[in-house]
Amino acid sequence: MSTAVGGGRRADAVRNRQLALDAAIALLSDPGATLTVEAIARRAGLGAGTVVRAFGGKDALVDAAVSTLLEPVVTRARDLLAQTSPERALRVFLAELIAFQSAHHSISEQLGGLDLPATTTLRAELVRVVEDMIAGARRDGAVRTDLEPDVIAVLIGESAFAIARSSPASGELAAAYITVMMDGLRPR
Amino acid sequence: MSTAVGGGRRADAVRNRQLALDAAIALLSDPGATLTVEAIARRAGLGAGTVVRAFGGKDALVDAAVSTLLEPVVTRARDLLAQTSPERALRVFLAELIAFQSAHHSISEQLGGLDLPATTTLRAELVRVVEDMIAGARRDGAVRTDLEPDVIAVLIGESAFAIARSSPASGELAAAYITVMMDGLRPR
Repeated sequence: MSTAVGGGRRADAVRNRQLALDAAIALLSDPGATLTVEAIARRAGLGAGTVVRAFGGKDALVDAAVSTLLEPVVTRARDLLAQTSPERALRVFLAELIAFQSAHHSISEQLGGLDLPATTTLRAELVRVVEDMIAGARRDGAVRTDLEPDVIAVLIGESAFAIARSSPASGELAAAYITVMMDGLRPR
Repeated sequence: MSTAVGGGRRADAVRNRQLALDAAIALLSDPGATLTVEAIARRAGLGAGTVVRAFGGKDALVDAAVSTLLEPVVTRARDLLAQTSPERALRVFLAELIAFQSAHHSISEQLGGLDLPATTTLRAELVRVVEDMIAGARRDGAVRTDLEPDVIAVLIGESAFAIARSSPASGELAAAYITVMMDGLRPR
């Protein structure tokens, strides 16, 4: 009997964890949302205390939600690099990354100050894959050698995010940006 | 006698206005500062009420301070366009603009939601001069014609500000950005 109750509690905990995670992920894609435990709880149909208990705290919950969103982006970058030329991979990935950031930028600006170890690891991995694209394109003669790959990676990271923030709806600016950036990265 | 007192009051008002303006301008260049009436008053050595009275409100004071900083930037852009080729003017101005934004970016992010008519007019004028640089360089065959000048202007505006925000101290990233951007804007 006590085992059955324990099993029910565990099932509840798993269910609450998933509800809280789903709610946090939905909030991350909502341009007008504020990322608070109360907002996540309201959207999940749970109490704030239940949400906090399910993950041990707001940071762990947000970290799980952002990681869930970011992981397929990192996987996609790796796949592109494995499947096509580094230059082509960089160009295609840049367009997809801007679209992704554009859909999530308003919330991503609320992540400052949070302790997000899984997210930090995934972001570092993303930078590493983009640096691999740049280094590969450089070896192929498709990217200039008078600029260091790590400087190019920061340049792309900062400017792509700015374009994503500024044009959540329009693809014209993003397309122009990718054209100018990729042409500008070619050897002179 | 009452005229002398009135004159003294007017002199005080002029002096307080200048003290408040100088303090606001100093705050705009302070990366760690928060742009509040209290912070401006503290730095000016005035009471908060005196600061508000001197300008009729926070918005008018901030507008005067930002305009004072922005006006020479707009004049410089116009001068460059008059003095050298449009492409050269764009390249030189971009470097100076990034240095300017880099020195003031932390505060410029606190301007949202304020009513700043003089600042808005100057910003529009700045965009117009940059569009003139782009249009001139296009006519000279130095900038590609497959992208619209207004799209290029937004592209430059957004990405340059992102670079300025990210590298307040280092010039390497800004130099790399200008190189890639100007090369990418050339006709293929």
